[in-house]
Amino acid sequence: MSATLHRLDARHGRAPSLDPMVQLVAGDMNMVNAAILDRMQSQIPLIPELAGHLIAGGGKRMRPMLTLASARLLGYTGNRHYRLAAAVEFIHTATLLHDDVVDGSDLRRGKRTANLIWGNPASVLVGDFLFSRSFELMVEDGSLKVLKILSNASAVIAEGEVNQLTAARRVETSEERYLDIIGAKTAALFAAACRIAAVVAERPEAEEAALDAYGRNLGIAFQLVDDAIDYVSDAGTMGKDAGDDFREGKATLPVILAYARGGPEERVFWKAAMEGHRASDDDFAHAVGLIRSTRAIDDTLARARHYAQRAIDALGGFAAGQAKEAMIEAVEFAVARAY
Amino acid sequence: MSATLHRLDARHGRAPSLDPMVQLVAGDMNMVNAAILDRMQSQIPLIPELAGHLIAGGGKRMRPMLTLASARLLGYTGNRHYRLAAAVEFIHTATLLHDDVVDGSDLRRGKRTANLIWGNPASVLVGDFLFSRSFELMVEDGSLKVLKILSNASAVIAEGEVNQLTAARRVETSEERYLDIIGAKTAALFAAACRIAAVVAERPEAEEAALDAYGRNLGIAFQLVDDAIDYVSDAGTMGKDAGDDFREGKATLPVILAYARGGPEERVFWKAAMEGHRASDDDFAHAVGLIRSTRAIDDTLARARHYAQRAIDALGGFAAGQAKEAMIEAVEFAVARAY
Repeated sequence: MSATLHRLDARHGRAPSLDPMVQLVAGDMNMVNAAILDRMQSQIPLIPELAGHLIAGGGKRMRPMLTLASARLLGYTGNRHYRLAAAVEFIHTATLLHDDVVDGSDLRRGKRTANLIWGNPASVLVGDFLFSRSFELMVEDGSLKVLKILSNASAVIAEGEVNQLTAARRVETSEERYLDIIGAKTAALFAAACRIAAVVAERPEAEEAALDAYGRNLGIAFQLVDDAIDYVSDAGTMGKDAGDDFREGKATLPVILAYARGGPEERVFWKAAMEGHRASDDDFAHAVGLIRSTRAIDDTLARARHYAQRAIDALGGFAAGQAKEAMIEAVEFAVARAY
Repeated sequence: MSATLHRLDARHGRAPSLDPMVQLVAGDMNMVNAAILDRMQSQIPLIPELAGHLIAGGGKRMRPMLTLASARLLGYTGNRHYRLAAAVEFIHTATLLHDDVVDGSDLRRGKRTANLIWGNPASVLVGDFLFSRSFELMVEDGSLKVLKILSNASAVIAEGEVNQLTAARRVETSEERYLDIIGAKTAALFAAACRIAAVVAERPEAEEAALDAYGRNLGIAFQLVDDAIDYVSDAGTMGKDAGDDFREGKATLPVILAYARGGPEERVFWKAAMEGHRASDDDFAHAVGLIRSTRAIDDTLARARHYAQRAIDALGGFAAGQAKEAMIEAVEFAVARAY
């Protein structure tokens, strides 16, 4: 075990990038993509049509990539992880389909959402199909341990989504509750995606736990940065519209901090905004100004760096090498996106 | 093995009833209900609140009852089936929550639907939670065979729901396609609920298959009768409004037969009705008249009796006794409801 200390300010003489991880697993990802394409088929044409729209829609395949990179880190040479990485992506895709119905979204990754094109009923039902199919893939693999990890992650995700729904439009949401929500709706699947690699590679519990911690902290950092980007106006290139969270009344950390740090007048504004009464472009510009003046973005990103550093340190016990470097740089990339 | 031939016209000197099956499993059902109540809990209060509305809402618990009765038939004396019957009910409840969103329903079992009270987003997400929880229950049981049966049934149900969605408002739907749809959306879970009892009782494949056939044929008969009841005007006591399917443009077998047997003028009416242009009470009365004059209800029920007889005959290899009698009478009850 190597004890090299990696810190977030360590740089490569270039901007941190996801490319090393993408390249690390490129060959493996072809196997995963083949499994995804194969298993989203159905005699009912609407299913592959709708699922394919989202699955082929330019996502980063972040979660299956984490399974593949973790397997590389452990020197796993089998092929069970291809099918399981596909199962992870199906869970994620099902969640996205249902999320877009819940949020009434019309754009994802810069494309029209499935619910906009095919309607909410089709998105709900195809999500259910993909979710069932993910369990079929896990059952084919046959590991009860993997099934336990991913069925638990699925329940936690759904719980987190309901928690988020009941927090919607409530500006008094606490930072603790917000962290609970993103820990459940985002970080749980990141953690599970990494952990299952240690299960198929039959590694000791400590390595399972280390990969779980890597994925979980990366997931939290990732979501914090996503939520910060929503208040950074030149974010058009991220495939997400700046101001979406603001207009949907999502009490993300930038809002929670700006509200907590604001004076009475500002709190009145935030409350009205979260309740949907301040949704114009001018209102959004005013919100961005308040978030800047209270340093809410800076501190959201500082929180993100905290979790990113924990993600990197969770890998401390693993030997240095190409996989570990790529996994560290992926964390650096996750937090560097917003600068 | 007993070879007693049970026929549908065999009677008990009274109307066939579900009561013998209810009484047969009453003690076991208390254990299942305890598992259901225990496992629908969550730190997020909306989850048990919404799930409890439907779960406590007066359903017959038909599917877990089938698991329990099948286990009785096999003389199973363990306790694994309690948790699995709860998992089956969770899958069913999740499906109902999503169905009501898909159909935009406002009444189920004579009560306001969850989507009407808490909104579509909450119904979608709590459905996802119950679905995940059902897999957690199965994983705790630990049988990969049970997991395979129920994950496959879940995927088939979702496929059937999408199939039904794409057939919606299309009067030219064929009887074959209609049977595919109800075989998937209803009968697959009936079949799985019965089959898993043979798995936990460690019985030979032939008995698994026999119970699967019993459940599948009962499920088809059950759905055919449900679809007939929608065109029987005094059906108010069933907790389902007569005319719901008609107004939603569902091409169920009564409509398929009436359309196929109708003249040009009648076909114009049915096409317009399925497309939503003939939704008044007068239109529904006219539809009921056409269905009577074409004997579409009689023949839908004749089809139901065919599957009911197959369900009963599937039990032929099992020894006579209280469980078998109750399971046969449940089938007779299923088809007698509409007389």
